[in-house]
Amino acid sequence: MPHPSGLITMLTDFGDRDTFVASMKGVILTINPRATFVDLSHHVPSHSIETAAYLLHSSYRYFPEGTVHVAVVDPGVGSGRRALIAKSGRYFFLAPDNGLLTYVFAESGEMEVREIENQAYRLPSVGSTFDGRDLFAPAAAWLTTQQSFESFGRLVTDCKTFTIATPVWEGKILVGAIIHVDRFGNLISNLTRQDLDEVRAVMKGRQPSIRIGKQMIEGLVVSYSEGTERQLSALINSDGKLEIFVKEASAADLLKEGRGARVEVS
Amino acid sequence: MPHPSGLITMLTDFGDRDTFVASMKGVILTINPRATFVDLSHHVPSHSIETAAYLLHSSYRYFPEGTVHVAVVDPGVGSGRRALIAKSGRYFFLAPDNGLLTYVFAESGEMEVREIENQAYRLPSVGSTFDGRDLFAPAAAWLTTQQSFESFGRLVTDCKTFTIATPVWEGKILVGAIIHVDRFGNLISNLTRQDLDEVRAVMKGRQPSIRIGKQMIEGLVVSYSEGTERQLSALINSDGKLEIFVKEASAADLLKEGRGARVEVS
Amino acid sequence: MPHPSGLITMLTDFGDRDTFVASMKGVILTINPRATFVDLSHHVPSHSIETAAYLLHSSYRYFPEGTVHVAVVDPGVGSGRRALIAKSGRYFFLAPDNGLLTYVFAESGEMEVREIENQAYRLPSVGSTFDGRDLFAPAAAWLTTQQSFESFGRLVTDCKTFTIATPVWEGKILVGAIIHVDRFGNLISNLTRQDLDEVRAVMKGRQPSIRIGKQMIEGLVVSYSEGTERQLSALINSDGKLEIFVKEASAADLLKEGRGARVEVS
Repeated sequence: MPHPSGLITMLTDFGDRDTFVASMKGVILTINPRATFVDLSHHVPSHSIETAAYLLHSSYRYFPEGTVHVAVVDPGVGSGRRALIAKSGRYFFLAPDNGLLTYVFAESGEMEVREIENQAYRLPSVGSTFDGRDLFAPAAAWLTTQQSFESFGRLVTDCKTFTIATPVWEGKILVGAIIHVDRFGNLISNLTRQDLDEVRAVMKGRQPSIRIGKQMIEGLVVSYSEGTERQLSALINSDGKLEIFVKEASAADLLKEGRGARVEVS
Repeated sequence: MPHPSGLITMLTDFGDRDTFVASMKGVILTINPRATFVDLSHHVPSHSIETAAYLLHSSYRYFPEGTVHVAVVDPGVGSGRRALIAKSGRYFFLAPDNGLLTYVFAESGEMEVREIENQAYRLPSVGSTFDGRDLFAPAAAWLTTQQSFESFGRLVTDCKTFTIATPVWEGKILVGAIIHVDRFGNLISNLTRQDLDEVRAVMKGRQPSIRIGKQMIEGLVVSYSEGTERQLSALINSDGKLEIFVKEASAADLLKEGRGARVEVS
Repeated sequence: MPHPSGLITMLTDFGDRDTFVASMKGVILTINPRATFVDLSHHVPSHSIETAAYLLHSSYRYFPEGTVHVAVVDPGVGSGRRALIAKSGRYFFLAPDNGLLTYVFAESGEMEVREIENQAYRLPSVGSTFDGRDLFAPAAAWLTTQQSFESFGRLVTDCKTFTIATPVWEGKILVGAIIHVDRFGNLISNLTRQDLDEVRAVMKGRQPSIRIGKQMIEGLVVSYSEGTERQLSALINSDGKLEIFVKEASAADLLKEGRGARVEVS
């Protein structure tokens, strides 16, 4: 069983112009002055639960055992959606019950999930618009002061999740989708190294061709520096996923494609 | 009397492209290696003292007693404007004497304010353009090493402040103003829950109507999720202020209104 | 000899939308839970090694002795370019061998530089696209756990550097260049206070004139507040460099000039 450390990560769509994130940290430090923070990102597109879920998935497993991950992208705040606290074999997670933990649930094996109901862990506050500060931050802080996991609230077994899009075969073509566009304009797909190996097996070892939009990419390279300037290239990225890029430029700009774009491998 | 902890918050208009903020933190850690930081925001619009004052007001009170708040939005750097160090019943503040502490002074009751004059607390440096690094950062750091408050400089009793705009009655209409636009495009006014209650009393309990620009909003909702898509709604936000929003969209974009816009409640 | 502290600074072009930086911090904290971080900047323009080198130069020396500076702007990742670990009389640096440490080498006197070769300090990982997380982060973390400097890899004596542009005399005119544009739109040149003094000596003490684009600036001021609104002014900035600014506005926008622009002093 993991033991909650004082290390708290934060993932939100609160941006950096306002003091939303800072207020959450202040609330936490008031309860546990030894808490430390790592910001995952505060630039999730507003209300984009699926992007937040992807970003959490891409980073949570690099943290030490006992890390408390707090993710607040919460268009349903104040609507009665449940607030969740969950524990896997290594980590703790706090998030609204809106699908944000979809990848975590898919990857973590058995987890204990509870609703955050205990009013003693809530900040007295006006309004119902900022559960990040008034509910998730104090709950995370109290967790790091070794309150029992049971004390947060009742067990939840019917958490909301979305369907993780997985590649499908259409004849001899494997069809996936772009699931994230990163800061460099690289297009990250849901096709994995294993998917590519399957295509190679079907193709009897020939290099795969990748089609996105009206463009075709022949074969994969190993690193960004092997790409050709002003042309699309593809590689398996540091998450083990097929990624489409332009050397030292933005594939998203060149292709005018983004999240959800169809990717065919044949 | 608060005891200065090693926790230092920072609020500036220095942005995140350059290393201005990092240099300040390096200077502080050189003096007090145990200092820790929370960034309030570094994206105050350049030289916008009133926005900085509002952002400080919206977050400083969520921090533990003894926190040292350093706020540097400083168009007058090098001009002879005074540098202030202040202490309330709970917190310490360092800022230029340009109105940045206006809300703090209004809210904190009696405070002791001094000019930062002691040259021993200043970094030897060329130029007079970066007091954030050369004056405020080392002064904050020395404060956290338990130098006496008196040692910073002489008492100041005539700090510069701006007039905090408060709502006014025009007949049976209460007129306020937008004082902040947040990252979501929500428009935050200076009208409080108490102001709305007063209007309701005048209206004999009927729900208030809110006019902004050419638009009218009838009544308030409690949470963002209760708003109507593509239409203006209003609620009392987590600061107790009347806020105008569009569900999962930007009210500022829809209205083409921003800071300073007139808001009528009747 | 400096002793590596647990304080690690980070400079990258990874931005803040993704979780690249957070993953690096997670990796470091897994190896050394007591590590602390200061972000120099993560908004280096993509792949811009010279800007990164300038930003490192402008800030590294404000940190306490023993600070470990990790800089990852790395267009050549996966190409076989070497990964470097270096130590000066006060600091440690980790960076790709692509010129990022050019100013550090020029300023630090004799340094010991090694290639990061030890596979025990590398994260087991797929792909060759994210050495920030898989190589630099764990190497920095292991350094702070007091592994011997020699254990990282072989000595390197032929590090890649770029030529630091220095001002040149053309007759009685000293010609420099803009080397950085900061967040306020201020244009920072490679001309120093000493350069200006030389021009004054040639000019027999008259105030220098500064030409940039088609504009002429007569003389220097001491602080931003002494500038004239909507007009170009110049001063010696907090780094001791000639800087061209517009009072409370952007000189870069007014001039339509940026990095590389010619600056003449006469």
